[in-house]
Amino acid sequence: MPYVNIKVTDEGVTAEQKRQLVKGTTQLLADVLNKEPHTTFVLIEEVNTDNWGIGYQVVTKLRQSAKQG
Amino acid sequence: MPYVNIKVTDEGVTAEQKRQLVKGTTQLLADVLNKEPHTTFVLIEEVNTDNWGIGYQVVTKLRQSAKQG
Amino acid sequence: MPYVNIKVTDEGVTAEQKRQLVKGTTQLLADVLNKEPHTTFVLIEEVNTDNWGIGYQVVTKLRQSAKQG
Amino acid sequence: MPYVNIKVTDEGVTAEQKRQLVKGTTQLLADVLNKEPHTTFVLIEEVNTDNWGIGYQVVTKLRQSAKQG
Amino acid sequence: MPYVNIKVTDEGVTAEQKRQLVKGTTQLLADVLNKEPHTTFVLIEEVNTDNWGIGYQVVTKLRQSAKQG
Amino acid sequence: MPYVNIKVTDEGVTAEQKRQLVKGTTQLLADVLNKEPHTTFVLIEEVNTDNWGIGYQVVTKLRQSAKQG
Repeated sequence: MPYVNIKVTDEGVTAEQKRQLVKGTTQLLADVLNKEPHTTFVLIEEVNTDNWGIGYQVVTKLRQSAKQG
Repeated sequence: MPYVNIKVTDEGVTAEQKRQLVKGTTQLLADVLNKEPHTTFVLIEEVNTDNWGIGYQVVTKLRQSAKQG
Repeated sequence: MPYVNIKVTDEGVTAEQKRQLVKGTTQLLADVLNKEPHTTFVLIEEVNTDNWGIGYQVVTKLRQSAKQG
Repeated sequence: MPYVNIKVTDEGVTAEQKRQLVKGTTQLLADVLNKEPHTTFVLIEEVNTDNWGIGYQVVTKLRQSAKQG
Repeated sequence: MPYVNIKVTDEGVTAEQKRQLVKGTTQLLADVLNKEPHTTFVLIEEVNTDNWGIGYQVVTKLRQSAKQG
Repeated sequence: MPYVNIKVTDEGVTAEQKRQLVKGTTQLLADVLNKEPHTTFVLIEEVNTDNWGIGYQVVTKLRQSAKQG
Protein backbone atom coordinates (compact mmCIF):
# COMPACT_ATOMS: atom_id res chain seq x y z
CA MET A 1 0.00 0.00 0.00
CA PRO A 2 2.51 2.64 -1.05
CA TYR A 3 1.80 6.34 -1.16
CA VAL A 4 3.63 8.41 -3.74
CA ASN A 5 3.54 12.19 -3.95
CA ILE A 6 4.95 13.79 -7.10
CA LYS A 7 5.46 17.53 -7.07
CA VAL A 8 6.19 19.35 -10.32
CA THR A 9 5.86 22.93 -11.53
CA ASP A 10 2.49 23.81 -13.08
CA GLU A 11 3.79 24.27 -16.58
CA GLY A 12 1.09 22.61 -18.63
CA VAL A 13 1.06 19.00 -17.49
CA THR A 14 -1.65 17.31 -19.57
CA ALA A 15 -4.24 14.80 -18.35
CA GLU A 16 -2.56 12.19 -20.55
CA GLN A 17 0.84 12.86 -18.94
CA LYS A 18 -0.74 12.53 -15.50
CA ARG A 19 -2.18 9.16 -16.51
CA GLN A 20 1.28 8.06 -17.63
CA LEU A 21 2.84 9.16 -14.34
CA VAL A 22 0.21 7.26 -12.34
CA LYS A 23 0.55 4.15 -14.46
CA GLY A 24 4.36 4.18 -14.54
CA THR A 25 4.78 4.80 -10.82
CA THR A 26 2.29 2.10 -9.88
CA GLN A 27 4.03 -0.34 -12.22
CA LEU A 28 7.44 0.50 -10.76
CA LEU A 29 6.26 -0.28 -7.22
CA ALA A 30 4.70 -3.53 -8.37
CA ASP A 31 7.89 -4.53 -10.20
CA VAL A 32 10.45 -3.53 -7.58
CA LEU A 33 8.62 -4.19 -4.31
CA ASN A 34 5.77 -6.43 -5.41
CA LYS A 35 3.26 -3.87 -4.13
CA GLU A 36 -0.43 -4.29 -4.81
CA PRO A 37 -1.64 -1.72 -7.41
CA HIS A 38 -5.15 -1.56 -5.94
CA THR A 39 -3.80 0.07 -2.80
CA THR A 40 -1.09 2.15 -4.43
CA PHE A 41 -1.83 5.87 -4.29
CA VAL A 42 -0.10 8.33 -6.61
CA LEU A 43 -0.78 12.03 -6.03
CA ILE A 44 0.47 14.69 -8.42
CA GLU A 45 0.76 18.22 -7.10
CA GLU A 46 1.36 21.09 -9.50
CA VAL A 47 3.16 24.01 -7.89
CA ASN A 48 3.15 27.54 -9.33
CA THR A 49 6.56 28.65 -10.63
CA ASP A 50 6.38 31.65 -8.25
CA ASN A 51 6.22 29.18 -5.37
CA TRP A 52 9.13 26.92 -6.29
CA GLY A 53 12.68 28.03 -5.54
CA ILE A 54 16.03 26.55 -6.43
CA GLY A 55 19.49 28.11 -6.19
CA TYR A 56 18.16 31.21 -4.34
CA GLN A 57 15.65 31.97 -7.11
CA VAL A 58 12.03 31.24 -7.95
CA VAL A 59 11.47 29.22 -11.12
CA THR A 60 9.49 32.06 -12.73
CA LYS A 61 12.67 34.10 -12.70
CA LEU A 62 14.83 31.21 -13.94
CA ARG A 63 12.52 30.70 -16.93
CA GLN A 64 12.75 34.41 -17.79
CA SER A 65 16.54 34.34 -17.58
CA ALA A 66 16.63 31.24 -19.78
CA LYS A 67 14.50 32.94 -22.45
CA GLN A 68 16.61 36.08 -22.45
CA GLY A 69 19.75 33.96 -22.18
CA MET B 1 1.50 20.26 19.06
CA PRO B 2 0.45 17.76 16.40
CA TYR B 3 0.30 18.49 12.70
CA VAL B 4 -2.30 16.66 10.64
CA ASN B 5 -2.54 16.77 6.87
CA ILE B 6 -5.70 15.37 5.29
CA LYS B 7 -5.71 14.89 1.54
CA VAL B 8 -8.97 14.17 -0.25
CA THR B 9 -10.19 14.50 -3.82
CA ASP B 10 -11.77 17.87 -4.66
CA GLU B 11 -15.28 16.55 -5.10
CA GLY B 12 -17.33 19.24 -3.41
CA VAL B 13 -16.15 19.24 0.18
CA THR B 14 -18.22 21.94 1.91
CA ALA B 15 -16.99 24.52 4.42
CA GLU B 16 -19.15 22.83 7.05
CA GLN B 17 -17.55 19.44 6.35
CA LYS B 18 -14.12 21.03 6.66
CA ARG B 19 -15.09 22.45 10.04
CA GLN B 20 -16.19 18.97 11.13
CA LEU B 21 -12.92 17.43 9.99
CA VAL B 22 -10.90 20.06 11.89
CA LYS B 23 -13.00 19.69 15.02
CA GLY B 24 -13.06 15.89 14.97
CA THR B 25 -9.35 15.47 14.31
CA THR B 26 -8.39 17.95 17.02
CA GLN B 27 -10.71 16.20 19.48
CA LEU B 28 -9.24 12.80 18.60
CA LEU B 29 -5.70 13.97 19.34
CA ALA B 30 -6.82 15.51 22.62
CA ASP B 31 -8.64 12.31 23.61
CA VAL B 32 -6.02 9.76 22.57
CA LEU B 33 -2.74 11.61 23.20
CA ASN B 34 -3.84 14.44 25.47
CA LYS B 35 -2.58 16.96 22.94
CA GLU B 36 -3.26 20.66 23.39
CA PRO B 37 -5.89 21.87 20.84
CA HIS B 38 -4.44 25.39 20.68
CA THR B 39 -1.31 24.05 19.03
CA THR B 40 -2.95 21.34 16.94
CA PHE B 41 -2.85 22.11 13.22
CA VAL B 42 -5.18 20.40 10.77
CA LEU B 43 -4.63 21.10 7.06
CA ILE B 44 -7.03 19.85 4.41
CA GLU B 45 -5.73 19.59 0.87
CA GLU B 46 -8.16 18.99 -1.98
CA VAL B 47 -6.58 17.22 -4.93
CA ASN B 48 -8.06 17.25 -8.43
CA THR B 49 -9.36 13.85 -9.56
CA ASP B 50 -7.00 14.05 -12.57
CA ASN B 51 -4.10 14.19 -10.13
CA TRP B 52 -5.00 11.26 -7.88
CA GLY B 53 -4.25 7.75 -9.01
CA ILE B 54 -5.11 4.36 -7.54
CA GLY B 55 -4.88 0.92 -9.13
CA TYR B 56 -3.06 2.29 -12.23
CA GLN B 57 -5.84 4.80 -12.96
CA VAL B 58 -6.68 8.40 -12.19
CA VAL B 59 -9.83 8.94 -10.14
CA THR B 60 -11.49 10.94 -12.96
CA LYS B 61 -11.47 7.75 -15.01
CA LEU B 62 -12.67 5.59 -12.12
CA ARG B 63 -15.64 7.88 -11.57
CA GLN B 64 -16.56 7.67 -15.28
CA SER B 65 -16.32 3.88 -15.25
CA ALA B 66 -18.49 3.74 -12.12
CA LYS B 67 -21.18 5.87 -13.78
CA GLN B 68 -21.19 3.78 -16.93
CA GLY B 69 -20.88 0.61 -14.87
CA MET C 1 -9.59 7.23 -0.78
CA PRO C 2 -8.26 9.82 1.65
CA TYR C 3 -4.68 10.03 2.81
CA VAL C 4 -4.04 11.34 6.32
CA ASN C 5 -0.61 12.08 7.75
CA ILE C 6 -0.40 12.68 11.50
CA LYS C 7 2.86 14.05 12.85
CA VAL C 8 3.48 14.06 16.60
CA THR C 9 6.54 14.22 18.81
CA ASP C 10 8.07 10.85 19.69
CA GLU C 11 7.20 10.95 23.36
CA GLY C 12 6.07 7.41 24.00
CA VAL C 13 3.06 6.90 21.73
CA THR C 14 1.91 3.34 22.39
CA ALA C 15 0.78 0.78 19.82
CA GLU C 16 -2.69 0.96 21.34
CA GLN C 17 -2.82 4.74 20.93
CA LYS C 18 -1.75 4.37 17.31
CA ARG C 19 -4.59 1.93 16.75
CA GLN C 20 -7.01 4.44 18.24
CA LEU C 21 -5.70 7.23 16.01
CA VAL C 22 -6.07 5.04 12.91
CA LYS C 23 -9.55 3.92 13.88
CA GLY C 24 -10.79 7.35 14.89
CA THR C 25 -9.45 9.14 11.83
CA THR C 26 -10.86 6.54 9.46
CA GLN C 27 -14.24 6.75 11.19
CA LEU C 28 -14.24 10.55 10.98
CA LEU C 29 -13.68 10.48 7.23
CA ALA C 30 -16.41 7.88 6.79
CA ASP C 31 -18.82 9.94 8.90
CA VAL C 32 -18.12 13.39 7.49
CA LEU C 33 -17.30 12.67 3.84
CA ASN C 34 -18.67 9.17 3.38
CA LYS C 35 -15.20 7.92 2.47
CA GLU C 36 -14.54 4.24 2.03
CA PRO C 37 -12.42 2.87 4.95
CA HIS C 38 -10.77 0.21 2.80
CA THR C 39 -8.96 2.87 0.83
CA THR C 40 -8.36 5.30 3.69
CA PHE C 41 -4.67 5.54 4.62
CA VAL C 42 -3.59 6.93 7.99
CA LEU C 43 0.15 7.41 8.54
CA ILE C 44 1.59 8.38 11.89
CA GLU C 45 5.03 9.93 11.96
CA GLU C 46 6.86 10.35 15.25
CA VAL C 47 9.33 13.22 15.22
CA ASN C 48 12.19 13.57 17.71
CA THR C 49 11.77 16.50 20.09
CA ASP C 50 15.13 17.86 18.88
CA ASN C 51 13.65 18.10 15.40
CA TRP C 52 10.39 19.91 16.19
CA GLY C 53 10.43 23.65 16.75
CA ILE C 54 7.76 26.07 17.89
CA GLY C 55 8.12 29.65 19.05
CA TYR C 56 11.81 29.81 18.07
CA GLN C 57 12.65 26.78 20.25
CA VAL C 58 12.97 23.02 19.86
CA VAL C 59 10.53 20.95 21.93
CA THR C 60 13.38 19.29 23.86
CA LYS C 61 14.20 22.70 25.30
CA LEU C 62 10.54 23.55 25.97
CA ARG C 63 10.10 20.34 27.96
CA GLN C 64 13.19 21.13 30.06
CA SER C 65 11.94 24.65 30.77
CA ALA C 66 8.53 23.27 31.76
CA LYS C 67 10.13 20.84 34.24
CA GLN C 68 12.29 23.52 35.79
CA GLY C 69 9.36 25.95 35.60
CA MET D 1 20.36 18.94 -1.43
CA PRO D 2 17.75 19.97 1.11
CA TYR D 3 14.04 20.11 0.43
CA VAL D 4 11.99 22.68 2.30
CA ASN D 5 8.22 22.91 2.22
CA ILE D 6 6.65 26.07 3.66
CA LYS D 7 2.90 26.04 4.17
CA VAL D 8 1.11 29.31 4.93
CA THR D 9 -2.47 30.53 4.64
CA ASP D 10 -3.35 32.12 1.29
CA GLU D 11 -3.79 35.61 2.61
CA GLY D 12 -2.12 37.67 -0.08
CA VAL D 13 1.48 36.51 -0.12
CA THR D 14 3.17 38.61 -2.81
CA ALA D 15 5.66 37.40 -5.42
CA GLU D 16 8.30 39.57 -3.75
CA GLN D 17 7.62 37.94 -0.36
CA LYS D 18 7.94 34.51 -1.97
CA ARG D 19 11.31 35.51 -3.41
CA GLN D 20 12.43 36.59 0.05
CA LEU D 21 11.31 33.29 1.60
CA VAL D 22 13.18 31.31 -1.06
CA LYS D 23 16.32 33.42 -0.70
CA GLY D 24 16.30 33.46 3.09
CA THR D 25 15.65 29.75 3.49
CA THR D 26 18.34 28.81 0.99
CA GLN D 27 20.82 31.12 2.73
CA LEU D 28 19.96 29.63 6.13
CA LEU D 29 20.71 26.10 4.92
CA ALA D 30 23.97 27.24 3.35
CA ASP D 31 25.00 29.04 6.56
CA VAL D 32 23.98 26.40 9.11
CA LEU D 33 24.61 23.15 7.24
CA ASN D 34 26.86 24.26 4.39
CA LYS D 35 24.29 23.01 1.88
CA GLU D 36 24.72 23.73 -1.81
CA PRO D 37 22.15 26.35 -2.98
CA HIS D 38 21.95 24.92 -6.51
CA THR D 39 20.33 21.77 -5.19
CA THR D 40 18.26 23.39 -2.44
CA PHE D 41 14.53 23.28 -3.18
CA VAL D 42 12.08 25.59 -1.42
CA LEU D 43 8.38 25.04 -2.09
CA ILE D 44 5.73 27.42 -0.82
CA GLU D 45 2.19 26.13 -0.53
CA GLU D 46 -0.66 28.53 0.10
CA VAL D 47 -3.59 26.93 1.89
CA ASN D 48 -7.11 28.39 1.91
CA THR D 49 -8.20 29.66 5.33
CA ASP D 50 -11.22 27.32 5.15
CA ASN D 51 -8.77 24.41 4.95
CA TRP D 52 -6.48 25.29 7.87
CA GLY D 53 -7.59 24.52 11.39
CA ILE D 54 -6.10 25.36 14.76
CA GLY D 55 -7.65 25.11 18.22
CA TYR D 56 -10.75 23.28 16.88
CA GLN D 57 -11.52 26.09 14.40
CA VAL D 58 -10.79 26.95 10.79
CA VAL D 59 -8.74 30.11 10.25
CA THR D 60 -11.58 31.76 8.30
CA LYS D 61 -13.63 31.72 11.49
CA LEU D 62 -10.71 32.91 13.65
CA ARG D 63 -10.18 35.91 11.36
CA GLN D 64 -13.90 36.81 11.60
CA SER D 65 -13.83 36.56 15.39
CA ALA D 66 -10.72 38.74 15.48
CA LYS D 67 -12.40 41.43 13.37
CA GLN D 68 -15.51 41.46 15.51
CA GLY D 69 -13.19 41.56 18.50
CA MET E 1 13.14 19.85 -10.94
CA PRO E 2 10.53 17.42 -9.64
CA TYR E 3 10.31 16.22 -6.08
CA VAL E 4 8.99 12.72 -5.46
CA ASN E 5 8.24 11.26 -2.05
CA ILE E 6 7.61 7.51 -1.87
CA LYS E 7 6.26 6.14 1.38
CA VAL E 8 6.23 2.39 1.98
CA THR E 9 6.07 0.16 5.01
CA ASP E 10 9.43 -0.76 6.53
CA GLU E 11 9.30 -4.42 5.63
CA GLY E 12 12.83 -5.06 4.49
CA VAL E 13 13.35 -2.79 1.50
CA THR E 14 16.89 -3.45 0.32
CA ALA E 15 19.46 -0.88 -0.79
CA GLU E 16 19.27 -2.37 -4.28
CA GLN E 17 15.48 -1.94 -4.38
CA LYS E 18 15.88 1.67 -3.28
CA ARG E 19 18.33 2.24 -6.12
CA GLN E 20 15.80 0.77 -8.56
CA LEU E 21 13.02 3.02 -7.21
CA VAL E 22 15.23 6.10 -7.56
CA LYS E 23 16.34 5.16 -11.04
CA GLY E 24 12.89 4.18 -12.29
CA THR E 25 11.13 7.25 -10.92
CA THR E 26 13.75 9.61 -12.31
CA GLN E 27 13.52 7.92 -15.70
CA LEU E 28 9.71 8.14 -15.69
CA LEU E 29 9.80 11.90 -15.10
CA ALA E 30 12.39 12.34 -17.83
CA ASP E 31 10.32 10.26 -20.26
CA VAL E 32 6.87 11.69 -19.53
CA LEU E 33 7.62 15.32 -18.67
CA ASN E 34 11.12 15.77 -20.07
CA LYS E 35 12.39 16.65 -16.60
CA GLU E 36 16.09 17.07 -15.95
CA PRO E 37 17.43 14.11 -13.87
CA HIS E 38 20.11 16.21 -12.20
CA THR E 39 17.48 18.20 -10.36
CA THR E 40 15.02 15.35 -9.77
CA PHE E 41 14.79 14.38 -6.11
CA VAL E 42 13.37 11.02 -5.04
CA LEU E 43 12.91 10.45 -1.31
CA ILE E 44 11.93 7.08 0.09
CA GLU E 45 10.38 6.99 3.55
CA GLU E 46 9.94 3.69 5.35
CA VAL E 47 7.08 3.71 7.84
CA ASN E 48 6.72 1.20 10.67
CA THR E 49 3.77 -1.16 10.24
CA ASP E 50 2.44 0.00 13.61
CA ASN E 51 2.21 3.52 12.17
CA TRP E 52 0.39 2.76 8.91
CA GLY E 53 -3.35 2.23 8.95
CA ILE E 54 -5.78 1.12 6.27
CA GLY E 55 -9.38 -0.03 6.62
CA TYR E 56 -9.51 0.92 10.33
CA GLN E 57 -6.48 -1.26 11.15
CA VAL E 58 -2.73 -0.91 11.46
CA VAL E 59 -0.69 -2.97 8.99
CA THR E 60 0.97 -4.93 11.82
CA LYS E 61 -2.45 -6.37 12.64
CA LEU E 62 -3.31 -7.01 8.97
CA ARG E 63 -0.10 -8.99 8.51
CA GLN E 64 -0.91 -11.10 11.59
CA SER E 65 -4.42 -11.81 10.33
CA ALA E 66 -3.03 -12.77 6.91
CA LYS E 67 -0.64 -15.27 8.49
CA GLN E 68 -3.32 -16.83 10.62
CA GLY E 69 -5.72 -16.65 7.65
CA MET F 1 0.63 29.88 11.86
CA PRO F 2 3.05 28.58 9.26
CA TYR F 3 4.23 25.00 9.02
CA VAL F 4 7.72 24.37 7.67
CA ASN F 5 9.16 20.96 6.89
CA ILE F 6 12.89 20.77 6.25
CA LYS F 7 14.25 17.52 4.87
CA VAL F 8 17.98 16.92 4.81
CA THR F 9 20.21 13.87 4.62
CA ASP F 10 21.13 12.32 7.97
CA GLU F 11 24.79 13.21 7.82
CA GLY F 12 25.45 14.30 11.37
CA VAL F 13 23.20 17.30 11.92
CA THR F 14 23.88 18.43 15.48
CA ALA F 15 21.31 19.54 18.07
CA GLU F 16 22.84 23.02 17.92
CA GLN F 17 22.40 23.16 14.13
CA LYS F 18 18.77 22.07 14.53
CA ARG F 19 18.22 24.90 16.99
CA GLN F 20 19.70 27.34 14.48
CA LEU F 21 17.44 26.06 11.70
CA VAL F 22 14.36 26.40 13.91
CA LYS F 23 15.32 29.87 15.06
CA GLY F 24 16.31 31.14 11.62
CA THR F 25 13.23 29.80 9.85
CA THR F 26 10.87 31.18 12.49
CA GLN F 27 12.60 34.58 12.29
CA LEU F 28 12.36 34.58 8.48
CA LEU F 29 8.60 34.00 8.58
CA ALA F 30 8.18 36.73 11.20
CA ASP F 31 10.26 39.16 9.13
CA VAL F 32 8.83 38.47 5.68
CA LEU F 33 5.19 37.64 6.44
CA ASN F 34 4.76 38.99 9.95
CA LYS F 35 3.85 35.52 11.19
CA GLU F 36 3.46 34.83 14.89
CA PRO F 37 6.41 32.73 16.19
CA HIS F 38 4.30 31.04 18.87
CA THR F 39 2.30 29.24 16.22
CA THR F 40 5.13 28.66 13.76
CA PHE F 41 6.07 24.98 13.48
CA VAL F 42 9.43 23.91 12.05
CA LEU F 43 9.98 20.18 11.56
CA ILE F 44 13.33 18.76 10.54
CA GLU F 45 13.39 15.32 8.97
CA GLU F 46 16.68 13.50 8.50
CA VAL F 47 16.64 11.06 5.62
CA ASN F 48 19.13 8.22 5.24
CA THR F 49 21.48 8.67 2.29
CA ASP F 50 20.29 5.31 0.91
CA ASN F 51 16.79 6.77 0.71
CA TRP F 52 17.55 10.03 -1.08
CA GLY F 53 18.08 10.03 -4.82
CA ILE F 54 19.18 12.73 -7.22
CA GLY F 55 20.34 12.41 -10.82
CA TYR F 56 19.36 8.69 -11.00
CA GLN F 57 21.55 7.84 -8.00
CA VAL F 58 21.21 7.49 -4.25
CA VAL F 59 23.28 9.93 -2.19
CA THR F 60 25.25 7.08 -0.56
CA LYS F 61 26.67 6.30 -3.98
CA LEU F 62 27.33 9.96 -4.81
CA ARG F 63 29.32 10.39 -1.62
CA GLN F 64 31.41 7.30 -2.45
CA SER F 65 32.11 8.57 -5.95
CA ALA F 66 33.11 11.97 -4.56
CA LYS F 67 35.60 10.37 -2.18
CA GLN F 68 37.13 8.23 -4.88
CA GLY F 69 36.94 11.16 -7.30
